[in-house]
Amino acid sequence: MNRHMVRYLLSKLLFIEAALLVVPLIVALIYHESPKILLSILATIAILLVIGAIGNGFKPRDHHIYTREGMLIVALCWILWSFFGALPFVFSGQIPNIIDAFFETSSGFTTTGATILPDVSVLSHSLLFWRSFTHLIGGMGVLVFALAIMENSKSSYLEVMRAEVPGPVFGKVVSKLKETAQILYILYLIMFAIFTVILIFEGMPVFDSFVTAMGTAGTGGFAVYNDSIAHYNSPLITNTVAIGMLVFGVNFNLYYLLLLGKLKAFFKDEELRTYLGIVLVATALIALNVLGMYDNFTDGLEKVFFEVSTIITTTGFGITDLAHWPLFSQCILLLLMFIGGSAGSTAGGLKVMRALILAKISRNHILSNLYPNRVLSLHINGSVIDKETQHGVLKYLTIYGAIFLALTLFLSLDNNNFMVVVSAAASCFNNIGPMLGTTDTFAIFSPFSKLLLSFAMIAGRLEIYPIILLLLPRTWSKL
Amino acid sequence: MNRHMVRYLLSKLLFIEAALLVVPLIVALIYHESPKILLSILATIAILLVIGAIGNGFKPRDHHIYTREGMLIVALCWILWSFFGALPFVFSGQIPNIIDAFFETSSGFTTTGATILPDVSVLSHSLLFWRSFTHLIGGMGVLVFALAIMENSKSSYLEVMRAEVPGPVFGKVVSKLKETAQILYILYLIMFAIFTVILIFEGMPVFDSFVTAMGTAGTGGFAVYNDSIAHYNSPLITNTVAIGMLVFGVNFNLYYLLLLGKLKAFFKDEELRTYLGIVLVATALIALNVLGMYDNFTDGLEKVFFEVSTIITTTGFGITDLAHWPLFSQCILLLLMFIGGSAGSTAGGLKVMRALILAKISRNHILSNLYPNRVLSLHINGSVIDKETQHGVLKYLTIYGAIFLALTLFLSLDNNNFMVVVSAAASCFNNIGPMLGTTDTFAIFSPFSKLLLSFAMIAGRLEIYPIILLLLPRTWSKL
Repeated sequence: MNRHMVRYLLSKLLFIEAALLVVPLIVALIYHESPKILLSILATIAILLVIGAIGNGFKPRDHHIYTREGMLIVALCWILWSFFGALPFVFSGQIPNIIDAFFETSSGFTTTGATILPDVSVLSHSLLFWRSFTHLIGGMGVLVFALAIMENSKSSYLEVMRAEVPGPVFGKVVSKLKETAQILYILYLIMFAIFTVILIFEGMPVFDSFVTAMGTAGTGGFAVYNDSIAHYNSPLITNTVAIGMLVFGVNFNLYYLLLLGKLKAFFKDEELRTYLGIVLVATALIALNVLGMYDNFTDGLEKVFFEVSTIITTTGFGITDLAHWPLFSQCILLLLMFIGGSAGSTAGGLKVMRALILAKISRNHILSNLYPNRVLSLHINGSVIDKETQHGVLKYLTIYGAIFLALTLFLSLDNNNFMVVVSAAASCFNNIGPMLGTTDTFAIFSPFSKLLLSFAMIAGRLEIYPIILLLLPRTWSKL
Repeated sequence: MNRHMVRYLLSKLLFIEAALLVVPLIVALIYHESPKILLSILATIAILLVIGAIGNGFKPRDHHIYTREGMLIVALCWILWSFFGALPFVFSGQIPNIIDAFFETSSGFTTTGATILPDVSVLSHSLLFWRSFTHLIGGMGVLVFALAIMENSKSSYLEVMRAEVPGPVFGKVVSKLKETAQILYILYLIMFAIFTVILIFEGMPVFDSFVTAMGTAGTGGFAVYNDSIAHYNSPLITNTVAIGMLVFGVNFNLYYLLLLGKLKAFFKDEELRTYLGIVLVATALIALNVLGMYDNFTDGLEKVFFEVSTIITTTGFGITDLAHWPLFSQCILLLLMFIGGSAGSTAGGLKVMRALILAKISRNHILSNLYPNRVLSLHINGSVIDKETQHGVLKYLTIYGAIFLALTLFLSLDNNNFMVVVSAAASCFNNIGPMLGTTDTFAIFSPFSKLLLSFAMIAGRLEIYPIILLLLPRTWSKL
């Protein structure tokens, strides 16, 4: 284990977080916020610079890092960013408890959007902005961001990035690493900017448009008001956000194909078709189940479509009270939580690609059991998915399921409502945000559960392995 | 598809069911039951004989059957036996609705023990006996039974048996098929007889001892009274049944080893150790969680141990009201429902062997992700489990999970309590019996849900594939 390189890279990453905190500082100045708030942000920046400078002091001789170092850096980076990013909330007294603030910030960076704030209005403009700004950064990946702006992109960074980009197939596209990171980030920021402008044109206040667009682009879900998107009471805005979330739940490589004019490849993509198919079917099933509850057909359908979009893309904006939906609809949403968005998007969950591979594996397995002489291969977009990848997905599902069950079990010590416990675990682990079966926030949980859920969010966002590495004793004994 | 052979073998199996119905007929005579009840059983026997004779009329020329025929015979046999076995309940008016009676009988044969009867006392001695007798038959397998008593054991029967014996490893032991089936059955019946005698000696009425022993041996769970084993209010009986269930949840091949004097192999068996380890840990965790609810420490611990034993062995006898246990304990029981007993026992669920393989696969996968250069193999009892078997277990888990989720989704249309819906699906699919989160019976579900759950019980008992084969349109188009 090259621990000097781990320290060195982490300290660089702390500098980057210090730089990012300048943005909420500017917001605080714009809104003439109190000196206490300004000082809270400045103090955090100072702490980051000091610790970063200490870690950055002497350069390591050996620059080589491997998978383990890569994973360790990613895991520690996300934890440190969440911890230091929480300090302005604590210093300003807006979220005085450090565990609550850590929960809120990791919820931000992981683009979960789960909150411990029963009332969002305790946050000043600057910190409300910072909370959602973490969505924007976390959405495309903290390390991808770092890579895009760092001075040199050695091949060793591949290991770092591999641990952060979601989905099982993304890695293959990434050949020219730094260029790809830059292209992806530019594409992402342009789409975010366009979406912000659209919201402003639709009559949303400028500040709200920025916050909402960051929540949408990162598929995060933190909003400006307690009643989230329902606050604007505008069908136009509701539908725009619903479609916007779906757009950011698509694999960004497909948009790159679109830019290159490869329309056919875009529209024939199996993952995209499956993703849209699931949205369609889920919307139809839930609509049949709940439409009787709404006076107006269009109004009801709008809310159903919004909820399906916000859950499958793992965003988690709110539009209606889910606790009153019948169990069938809640179960469908729970399933969508696990499916999640597309691989290579900002969304969380297992990813549509994995669900698609699992479905095809299951079909093949059943057929081969019934017709033992058949030889069956598995294709996606015309390419064979080899056995190694297939089994990797199966094992990922197993470990994913085991962690989810363990989470649920721990939470059940803390709350006696089965739907609350299951949906809280699913919501955090899949980076969604809201719970089902209750109108409460995560404030109902004990500090231990909140810490556990914070780590679950990070584990879910980083696709498990980096956080497991952190928990293994041998990782630390070999440092 | 050799449909003549399917018809021919099925008709033989109907004869066997007719013969089995003689047992409750004798019980009815012993208890001087009304002519209506006697006629109900006799009429069912007559129907079985007539239909069997028609199907058995002309012998097929080609005696060869393959996997598909084997699975089809098993699936149809279990459905037909459940259907015809339900007729005495319907004819006698004790369970007038055919769907309810079908549910109850498939629950019996599959050793589930789920009931639609809010009050068991509506059943006469003969039909109460018949209901539990199906546990005894179903426990070791309807087809294994048939094989043990049939005149010739052609190699083609291997296909039939393979589809019925639970667990991923049993098949390897079965080399001399008919002999093995006979040894297993004799062992099983001797153990059942011993257990019956023990219960009688402990003061349980003779009739109750037979019924309870059949429920225990088959890990079924149908009892004589509404309050199940709690009725006897005897710590001795409670503990005897708890240990008895555990005994019948062990792989029967191990008892064969024990008979051969291979004590070391018995006690070193990894599945056995894991099984007992899970029982110990689950009992300890639940005890810590619920003991405060019981006045007396011993009394509480007894109930906890009984519940852990009854759930992991997928028996489902009752001793206390689970609906009032805290969520944590209910979640642990829910997990035990999926683990189930050992492979090659009468228990249902995924089986401890599969859970053990999955745990080892997960550990290896995590390690190989973190240390890519390591070569890791998977051993159980000192033998390597090959990749093929490992992947088979992973795929089985995936399909098992998908069916469970689909079941839950259907049931959620019928009931609005999440724990009830989840535990009902888990309980039937894993052949356990009781639901969690309610004191109601399965009578609360609609006829459609009851039918669905009946098929789920059979699918769970036959480890899925035979029932999936039944549902494929191509199975029928090729007949």
